Amino acid sequence: MSTSLARPGLISLAAGFTDNPTLPVDEVRGLLDELLSDRLAGEQALQYGSTQGLPALIELTAARIEHLEQKSGNSNAEKKRFAGRLVITHGSQQLLYLVTEVLCDAGDIVLVEDPTYFVYLGIVQSHGLHCRGLRLEPDGIDLASLDRTLTNLRKTGVLPRLKLLYVVTYHQNPTGTTTAFTKKRAALDMLRYYEKWAGHPIYFFEDAAYRELGFEEETEPSVLQLIEAAERIIYAGTYSKPFATGVRVGYGLLPESVREAVIRVKGNHDFGTANFLQHLLARAISSGVYDVHLKSLRRRYAEKANCMISAIRSSFSEVVEWRKPNGGMYMWVSLPRKIKTGLRSSFFARALEHDVLYVPGQICYATDPGRPRPNHEMRLSYGNATPNEIKEGIARLGRVIGEYLC
Amino acid sequence: MSTSLARPGLISLAAGFTDNPTLPVDEVRGLLDELLSDRLAGEQALQYGSTQGLPALIELTAARIEHLEQKSGNSNAEKKRFAGRLVITHGSQQLLYLVTEVLCDAGDIVLVEDPTYFVYLGIVQSHGLHCRGLRLEPDGIDLASLDRTLTNLRKTGVLPRLKLLYVVTYHQNPTGTTTAFTKKRAALDMLRYYEKWAGHPIYFFEDAAYRELGFEEETEPSVLQLIEAAERIIYAGTYSKPFATGVRVGYGLLPESVREAVIRVKGNHDFGTANFLQHLLARAISSGVYDVHLKSLRRRYAEKANCMISAIRSSFSEVVEWRKPNGGMYMWVSLPRKIKTGLRSSFFARALEHDVLYVPGQICYATDPGRPRPNHEMRLSYGNATPNEIKEGIARLGRVIGEYLC
Repeated sequence: MSTSLARPGLISLAAGFTDNPTLPVDEVRGLLDELLSDRLAGEQALQYGSTQGLPALIELTAARIEHLEQKSGNSNAEKKRFAGRLVITHGSQQLLYLVTEVLCDAGDIVLVEDPTYFVYLGIVQSHGLHCRGLRLEPDGIDLASLDRTLTNLRKTGVLPRLKLLYVVTYHQNPTGTTTAFTKKRAALDMLRYYEKWAGHPIYFFEDAAYRELGFEEETEPSVLQLIEAAERIIYAGTYSKPFATGVRVGYGLLPESVREAVIRVKGNHDFGTANFLQHLLARAISSGVYDVHLKSLRRRYAEKANCMISAIRSSFSEVVEWRKPNGGMYMWVSLPRKIKTGLRSSFFARALEHDVLYVPGQICYATDPGRPRPNHEMRLSYGNATPNEIKEGIARLGRVIGEYLC
Repeated sequence: MSTSLARPGLISLAAGFTDNPTLPVDEVRGLLDELLSDRLAGEQALQYGSTQGLPALIELTAARIEHLEQKSGNSNAEKKRFAGRLVITHGSQQLLYLVTEVLCDAGDIVLVEDPTYFVYLGIVQSHGLHCRGLRLEPDGIDLASLDRTLTNLRKTGVLPRLKLLYVVTYHQNPTGTTTAFTKKRAALDMLRYYEKWAGHPIYFFEDAAYRELGFEEETEPSVLQLIEAAERIIYAGTYSKPFATGVRVGYGLLPESVREAVIRVKGNHDFGTANFLQHLLARAISSGVYDVHLKSLRRRYAEKANCMISAIRSSFSEVVEWRKPNGGMYMWVSLPRKIKTGLRSSFFARALEHDVLYVPGQICYATDPGRPRPNHEMRLSYGNATPNEIKEGIARLGRVIGEYLC
């Protein structure tokens, strides 16, 4: 990000920023004018709140999750049950951090997708944890890979160090993959089966950050449908990316014991997410402004995804592999294995010379003793770049790829 | 806090909330209307920022510290030097947490005032740290107590576990004490002297959260004056309490190596404080709105402090000890030692029966093997209560004290 800010000619297809022209400037102005015109409401918004979050926003969030679940066929969705398990955080990033801090000790093991959200790997590293990467298929983790990994952990006697499986289930960052519900259920069952050797709960941690950013209606329910396993399920969501990234508000839905611990630690971190932002979001949601904005945002991203796909079709060699995204803001591109794309590769340096930046695929892979980190992929974002920048950025990348394929 | 919210008849002299009627509702409305009327500025405010903080706010903060220092006679104050060492956080609470996380490992020792800011003790506990409490005098820590403690740590061979001294230097929470500059200098010298046995830096951590909330002009420079010891100095400040507690923005000034580590860990926590709040604060400061508001807030607190003093004079027995505050929002009240005031005391329960809540002094003392925690004091806040509530709350407390003095 600092690289992209420092060079004005550079086209960044790296940053996970959202689209500037779609940011809801007028909408936020209207909402806050209304909020602050009411002296009492304004005072409440500018005063401290509680550590777990604004009750009104918790209720709205629970209703929102209930609605998403019902639309995707979850007949177990119930607002009341969700509200009691929620906590509001300073972006969903904080939730990821708090959950990991609460559940894991240095030396513990977490399972992640191959590849996964690279910022989560930073959290993992900062806590001194070890990872095992699970092979990713077009509909989510490979269950055979999960089974093999669990068996291996059991056989080597380290299953008691396994604490959780972290999966980004909708339009995954970085690959765009959406996990099939049947796979979530099977994975959760498998984790529960292996608990007898672990001697403690193994949590299924569903990061649904991009759930609301699908180009079409979502059909996969979340793991929350598995009401009988509620004590093993952690679910993270966010309002930042779907609304405004400068307004950091995320949330988590947690088993009671984990929730209590998370709130206690959050009390030490910041004793509550900025109340003002929570009041803003509550108004955005209850007024309908949020949903109207979301609809236009999804259309915009779908257009830009199409723009990137067209550009790739005309600029990249046919040996380059990629998949059409159905939501989110990322495309995952695989070059022939002989072409290294890592931060220290000559390819990366050459792309920078051509004034185009991407996220090297390698940094999206956990350090796992069972395999080297693949080093021939790229994450490309159509989130922040304009259609023209996307076209030009892909053309530049295409030229670099061309050089390396010779 | 949850107790105070649940009982409408209860008067809380416990919460560290600021004064509702003084919250800058109209001011924030004006500032945000201006910000969001400018499409480009609005987009910048609603987009992600960087982890270390908004450059404009960092510059303004550096200039602000420079100004405070110069007013108190610090000829070493220099904006440029301060700006390079700043990081913006989600309230100063987050800075306290990050610094402690970065500098301390479980089993380490930190020195604190007796009594100290009790939320910091929560951070200390959550990291598995040990404390030593230093006797507090009307002008800051007792240097003899510091010397004795350091000698004792050296003699018992645990000085290598000592990482920092944490002091709340202006209108301290909970006692209202302001630390004399000469004491800061002497304490820092002492820490540096003992470093040879520690084998690593021992940091002087100045929490200046209430520096801007003095009733009169401050005259004590901060430890930042000691430019030759800059590598050992950490300074925390906040905009939340002086402006709006619902807008969580704090900051820290750190030695370069500590700053780098803090930014790295903050990247894992939340990759940056909500940009929107930072833009709001930057506008509040640069427009002068912040200073106008601060002036009225200080007048208001001075009035309410006087109101509490009058009420105490007429309602409390003369055997009760207290001191006139010069700023901040707290009074520290000592009862005869035989009257226990702790959370489980009959006195606390009786006060609740009389519908009045205070913070028991005991929770403001660290657990220190060298002494039991004193249990006959109370922290009373005039921050949130109205003048009538203060009068009535103190009268109720006076009746309870009367019962116990019989």
